Amino acid sequence: MATYKDATNDEVDVALQSSWKAFREYRQINLKDRAHFLHSIASALDLATQQLIAVADEETHLGEARLKVELKRTIFQLNSYAQACEEGTWLDIRIDTGDANRNPPKPDLRKMLVPLGPVVVFGASNFPFAYSTAGGDTACALAAGCTVLLKAHPAHAATSEMVADVVSQAAKQCGLPDGVFIHLHGAGFETGTALVRHPLTKAVGFTGSYGGGKALFDLANNRSVPIPVFAEMGSVNPVFLLPQKLKEETGEVAAMYASSITQGGGQFCTNPGLLIAIEDDALNEFKKQLGKLLSDVRPVKMLHAGIAKSFHQNRAKMLAEKGVSISAVTAFEAGEEETIPTLAEVAATIFLQNPLLHQEVFGPFSLLVKCKDMQEMLQVANALEGQLTANLMATDEEVKEHPALVETLQDICGRFVLNGAPTGVEVALAMHHGGPYPATTDSRFTAVGADGIKRFARPVCYQGWSDDLLPQELKNKNPLQLWRTVNNALTKDAVT
Amino acid sequence: MATYKDATNDEVDVALQSSWKAFREYRQINLKDRAHFLHSIASALDLATQQLIAVADEETHLGEARLKVELKRTIFQLNSYAQACEEGTWLDIRIDTGDANRNPPKPDLRKMLVPLGPVVVFGASNFPFAYSTAGGDTACALAAGCTVLLKAHPAHAATSEMVADVVSQAAKQCGLPDGVFIHLHGAGFETGTALVRHPLTKAVGFTGSYGGGKALFDLANNRSVPIPVFAEMGSVNPVFLLPQKLKEETGEVAAMYASSITQGGGQFCTNPGLLIAIEDDALNEFKKQLGKLLSDVRPVKMLHAGIAKSFHQNRAKMLAEKGVSISAVTAFEAGEEETIPTLAEVAATIFLQNPLLHQEVFGPFSLLVKCKDMQEMLQVANALEGQLTANLMATDEEVKEHPALVETLQDICGRFVLNGAPTGVEVALAMHHGGPYPATTDSRFTAVGADGIKRFARPVCYQGWSDDLLPQELKNKNPLQLWRTVNNALTKDAVT
Repeated sequence: MATYKDATNDEVDVALQSSWKAFREYRQINLKDRAHFLHSIASALDLATQQLIAVADEETHLGEARLKVELKRTIFQLNSYAQACEEGTWLDIRIDTGDANRNPPKPDLRKMLVPLGPVVVFGASNFPFAYSTAGGDTACALAAGCTVLLKAHPAHAATSEMVADVVSQAAKQCGLPDGVFIHLHGAGFETGTALVRHPLTKAVGFTGSYGGGKALFDLANNRSVPIPVFAEMGSVNPVFLLPQKLKEETGEVAAMYASSITQGGGQFCTNPGLLIAIEDDALNEFKKQLGKLLSDVRPVKMLHAGIAKSFHQNRAKMLAEKGVSISAVTAFEAGEEETIPTLAEVAATIFLQNPLLHQEVFGPFSLLVKCKDMQEMLQVANALEGQLTANLMATDEEVKEHPALVETLQDICGRFVLNGAPTGVEVALAMHHGGPYPATTDSRFTAVGADGIKRFARPVCYQGWSDDLLPQELKNKNPLQLWRTVNNALTKDAVT
Repeated sequence: MATYKDATNDEVDVALQSSWKAFREYRQINLKDRAHFLHSIASALDLATQQLIAVADEETHLGEARLKVELKRTIFQLNSYAQACEEGTWLDIRIDTGDANRNPPKPDLRKMLVPLGPVVVFGASNFPFAYSTAGGDTACALAAGCTVLLKAHPAHAATSEMVADVVSQAAKQCGLPDGVFIHLHGAGFETGTALVRHPLTKAVGFTGSYGGGKALFDLANNRSVPIPVFAEMGSVNPVFLLPQKLKEETGEVAAMYASSITQGGGQFCTNPGLLIAIEDDALNEFKKQLGKLLSDVRPVKMLHAGIAKSFHQNRAKMLAEKGVSISAVTAFEAGEEETIPTLAEVAATIFLQNPLLHQEVFGPFSLLVKCKDMQEMLQVANALEGQLTANLMATDEEVKEHPALVETLQDICGRFVLNGAPTGVEVALAMHHGGPYPATTDSRFTAVGADGIKRFARPVCYQGWSDDLLPQELKNKNPLQLWRTVNNALTKDAVT
């Protein structure tokens, strides 16, 4: 495997200077040309598919099939955010026209989002394409009009290098300055720290562990000028299995969750780490069927040695906790760097007393929390921390019968799934991939879907500017044909 | 003057428990009833005008005329945010319908903003009505569906008490639980600290000093679960006077700024604390005219003894800095608790070397920074910190001739005023009253205008919910007739 030198503090400084210079040029570019740049990256990635998959598979062991899907998703994201960028609704334009005859005179006010500046994006270990180099954060930042400094994840540095070349080539072809996208390596903490601390850095995007995200959040808040950090730090994505639903569809639910727990070696931030159910015959049958399905799942090689080591350690730690036992496990022998698909179980009374059991074991590991009754299930819901998703398997009647449980689950999550699995995060405007802390550092923004563009922009209000001097987006005639709220009414009409 | 006991930690805990309980009830209320509550507060404040003004004038010395305008603004805000609340565009609804035939099946996704929970609002010393008890933050939080815990500003605690009674009465008449609005006193730091640290507190609104806002920001970020703080911490609102404009309209500009500097005793966060101009004959004439106008302004009693003391101290400190001299000052003798309308001046070379000169002197004090040329003016712009507003007095030709200055000013501000004064913050959807740090702790949100509602809400995405189980806002038929983005198109149509 190729090795790369960590960027030094001096190199980080040079990179930021270059990024800032490029930002001043890039943000002047119109929405159409910005979208064209994103589409160009997408096309170039598509052309390079074969080479990219080969290198990524060597680095991550994710396998050709999964990597192909992920690269397609990456390309889709770029095209989709490009479309949103050009369409421009995300600019949140509001115009209130003035009135010189009012006493005092009412000024003309026009507001739109403008890009923040250079954004530092950290590649994610578990998504070499979709949430790394030309992934969601990069696509959103570029769509917002920001420049990007990408810190490659050391576990797939060669893939990152290759994707970065594609982005840089696309930038060149679009006549954009080099600094619009800068690629840096940094296996140690120093490079990332220097990037987040640099005064010209204006925002941070991160997908990874709680420890990593929290460290960046603290760094950013302790700068002399704090900056926003959007860190998506994973979650246990609790699944509440209600008794009637479980009884009626035991087999279907078991099959759905066997797949959701083990998909991609369980290496998704939306992996369902907790199943919460009530002890009854249906649950026993469900455990039997889910157990059978899990025992048939073969171990797979994990993303890299570090993640495999953590999985094995955290799994063992969890199983060693008081009251935790194995309910089902793969029937196959697992290698040192491989997964061990596992369902453990514990009584709710013990779960409620031991916060360690609330923690994520990154990989195909789920903990079944057995409750005496609905009251205890509600207690478990109330004890949970912020999550990317909360999942409810329930009949319509059960949903209506348990408003307190529904309310509590909504309070802890960013996406509330009814009768589905948390894995499979659709790239769509209506998606919210975020959630209350510690799932993310800012529950008000999403990491997936075009609303993610707004993470990297802020409003500016122009007061008293003549039409001639206003940006295109705000001119009376609405030359870009954008949706705008004019005097409190949404319209594409010109201001008259 | 009446004295009030600071709320103890136990009282804060009881208040938060009550607020959380009320939140669970209040958030269920439909948008129309929520709006009705805000309108009711507005009407009740209007009815109580005479008593409110009398008490506030005694506590703040702001005078009946100013206080009447401020109370009218407060009432307007409540009505305006009520209207926005009911109209519901702020919910940012996005619906992507599912497709069972896609492989894999595409889920139905519906996203809207939901309220965060109990919000702690700190009354502002300089606005006893508009940014205190039933002011902008309270109105936005209630419109978002949050409950409010209001910490009264000790400088107008009796006014706060009286306004709180009006709000509580309105809540009672609307059949809302007591806990929807809770009023607390806390002259010391302890009460505020306990409020921000309490686990049930979900967000904070603050208007005041940098020191106060920064302390709350740090407290909130160091909680085990950090929460958003929206702190509006003031700014010096720099005014760049370009030579041609100054030459053409010397008298008009002097009159506009004499008024802007001294309005309300200079006690606005949008007070223009810096004037930046180029040394020439027009500037000499401008100084003469502005100086004459300022010398005619009578000292007024400031908000309270503490603010007056700070003004006198900070003014003296500023005047004692090397190279700073008085350009003009009121011709009248000022009492101990009164303002001393002052224009000081300093050479840009000195200003650039001394960051102390960038700081706000809260009150009617402006510093004129004299530049040799446009190059030096640009250096001054580049040296400035984040501001609520940047102000440019320039002819159209001058705007076009100096793109770097225009760009730099946009980068440091939330509102960019051309040929106007920063004072006078219109309550309108297109307003942005915010700006880069240290003007606020989050440049992405506004403290004035209905977009401020969004500070206290976060998105939740419902995946796979049947129409029957969805909230009213997201149902197929669009019963509330809201603007929604359905499959990427903005519409009020039903989902078919």
